[in-house]
Amino acid sequence: MSERDTRFDAAMRTAIGLAGLALGRTSPNPVVGCVVLDRDGAVAGTGHHAVAGGPHAEVVALAAAGPRALGGTAVVTLEPCAHTGRTGPCADALLAAGIAAVVYAVPDPNAAAAGGARRLRDAGVRVLGGVLRAEAERGNEMWLTAVRTGRPFVTWKFAGTLDGRSAAADGSSRWITAGAARRDAHALRAAHDAVVVGAGTLRADDPQLGLRHGVGGTPPVRVVVVSDGRVPPGARVLDGSAPTLVAMDRDAPDPGLPGVDVIRLPRTPGGLDLAALLTGLYARDVRSVLVEGGAALAAGFVAAGLVDRVVAYLAPALLGSGPGVLGDIGVTGMGQVRRLRVDGVDLIGEDVRVVLRPGAARTPEDAHA
Amino acid sequence: MSERDTRFDAAMRTAIGLAGLALGRTSPNPVVGCVVLDRDGAVAGTGHHAVAGGPHAEVVALAAAGPRALGGTAVVTLEPCAHTGRTGPCADALLAAGIAAVVYAVPDPNAAAAGGARRLRDAGVRVLGGVLRAEAERGNEMWLTAVRTGRPFVTWKFAGTLDGRSAAADGSSRWITAGAARRDAHALRAAHDAVVVGAGTLRADDPQLGLRHGVGGTPPVRVVVVSDGRVPPGARVLDGSAPTLVAMDRDAPDPGLPGVDVIRLPRTPGGLDLAALLTGLYARDVRSVLVEGGAALAAGFVAAGLVDRVVAYLAPALLGSGPGVLGDIGVTGMGQVRRLRVDGVDLIGEDVRVVLRPGAARTPEDAHA
Repeated sequence: MSERDTRFDAAMRTAIGLAGLALGRTSPNPVVGCVVLDRDGAVAGTGHHAVAGGPHAEVVALAAAGPRALGGTAVVTLEPCAHTGRTGPCADALLAAGIAAVVYAVPDPNAAAAGGARRLRDAGVRVLGGVLRAEAERGNEMWLTAVRTGRPFVTWKFAGTLDGRSAAADGSSRWITAGAARRDAHALRAAHDAVVVGAGTLRADDPQLGLRHGVGGTPPVRVVVVSDGRVPPGARVLDGSAPTLVAMDRDAPDPGLPGVDVIRLPRTPGGLDLAALLTGLYARDVRSVLVEGGAALAAGFVAAGLVDRVVAYLAPALLGSGPGVLGDIGVTGMGQVRRLRVDGVDLIGEDVRVVLRPGAARTPEDAHA
Repeated sequence: MSERDTRFDAAMRTAIGLAGLALGRTSPNPVVGCVVLDRDGAVAGTGHHAVAGGPHAEVVALAAAGPRALGGTAVVTLEPCAHTGRTGPCADALLAAGIAAVVYAVPDPNAAAAGGARRLRDAGVRVLGGVLRAEAERGNEMWLTAVRTGRPFVTWKFAGTLDGRSAAADGSSRWITAGAARRDAHALRAAHDAVVVGAGTLRADDPQLGLRHGVGGTPPVRVVVVSDGRVPPGARVLDGSAPTLVAMDRDAPDPGLPGVDVIRLPRTPGGLDLAALLTGLYARDVRSVLVEGGAALAAGFVAAGLVDRVVAYLAPALLGSGPGVLGDIGVTGMGQVRRLRVDGVDLIGEDVRVVLRPGAARTPEDAHA
């Protein structure tokens, strides 16, 4: 098998698709998909890691394949693990099933779990790594970013008008975007482990932060960043439908919120230390965070360079006044503008969705023009 | 020939493409393209109306076809004219060349010019109208809108960051969008008869409003809306490279701008009467206007319902503060939000271009959700 081997691309694409089904449900584990091919290359079984604590993708696919796995090939999005966690090592399960070859996309970056490829090779299994690696990394980017940086992957999502307003002058904002975009935003919420809002949003909207619009899945942990810790007792985020976590000033008095997890944060010149918040969330097994607002909290994440992806829903509508989608990020002149790069533009129903990543490099023409 | 006849679609598409080449150069005339097919249906000649006062598309294409026009078919984007203006009637030219059939897309809405189809039919020519009409109307939408409404077609163009800022807090704005978007914006300028800016833009940017970035064509008439008529004597819009027109308050004293055309406008509660400005421009043969800013002038056009199209260049960049792309349009709550519909989304270089039209109808789900 050579590095340019394309025989397994179709199976790997299926495995990547299977993995993605569980986004938002597997943390602190990655999403993983697996397709087991029999001796003749026909699909014998498929599976994915559906939920943290549940069986790994390889085990599910092997069970589905049954005796047809003998002498077959396992195509898996991530290097099979070699360690015993809540379940046994997948490498051993593959060996036990008599798999003759293993094809994987992404090497395991997790020191504790790595070594699966070697164990398999040592046992005489043919192993090919790196197949459709970029595609598979993208499917697992939140987990990979978290493992590599030690903090959760951060998506900032906002909805605004074409002229950058998140609400009208009187504060009304329902609904800036149409149903399709709101459904899409709920699917985005479902794909993250935690959703974060600030004090202003908490007071203005009293959001419940659950999953609606027919979007299923595990509702994300609800994180409210409130310096003084004062969450109104009747706030919908305290309705018990999902875990709630209050991030507050280290030095503020006890907010008296029984049964609510509290993270106490140091203060920085720009407000509460959001990097410390992310570290605290990582320690609680959160690998992906959706920052939903408002403008001031988003500005804190942007200014601190903590945003890995922006998902903007832009409504074809004009307000001309009202609060902006983003607060002060400390930029006063064009020399300090925060450049991103467009990673995707789509029409979602009647609204425009733009996905962006940090760090655009401008061409010399533009730098000097 | 039936209404669903598709034999002439390819020739008509070519004619529509030819017509578009002259956008911005033919006012007060429409853009028109023509393809002459010989008896056997082969292309014998092509032409377009390149500039106001120049020969009409049919005449150019007939000249190119020469004797091969005899017994052939003329495929033309607009109903051939029957009147004598600066040139003779095209219907007569087609008859003189011995054309046997005429296929056109859009009936002439101009009462003075209409009647060409009837004159041709009366002379024994087979005539088929409405071929690719929607496509051809779109290519001529600025002129058609102007003829139908008695005022020029208005495009509002702006460049801003994803968070709706047209400049940083210190007023710097070069460059929010990259080279490709700026070139595209100059091509848009070239396609309009006039470009309009307000007093704030005049003072802040001292724009020249000509065609750069390698964009050719007739530079548009430069219209500055300045209530008191005070344009600084050294302003670049007075450099003589294209006509300049000052729109000012009817009651303000003479601004003393020798050689500059002045339109005096009544005042409305929202500022100078922009509908009256458009009427004045129409009387000066302007059929299309590009409103380039700033935020206050754009707000005046939007609030008055005078915008037919919005072209937004959104840079993948964040400022967090600074002037917004649109000023107050009198909207205070979501019930009054100005809804548009997306007519196109494209990546232009590294920036997002969104084209919008007025008047979205929301679905019941969204109206009541």
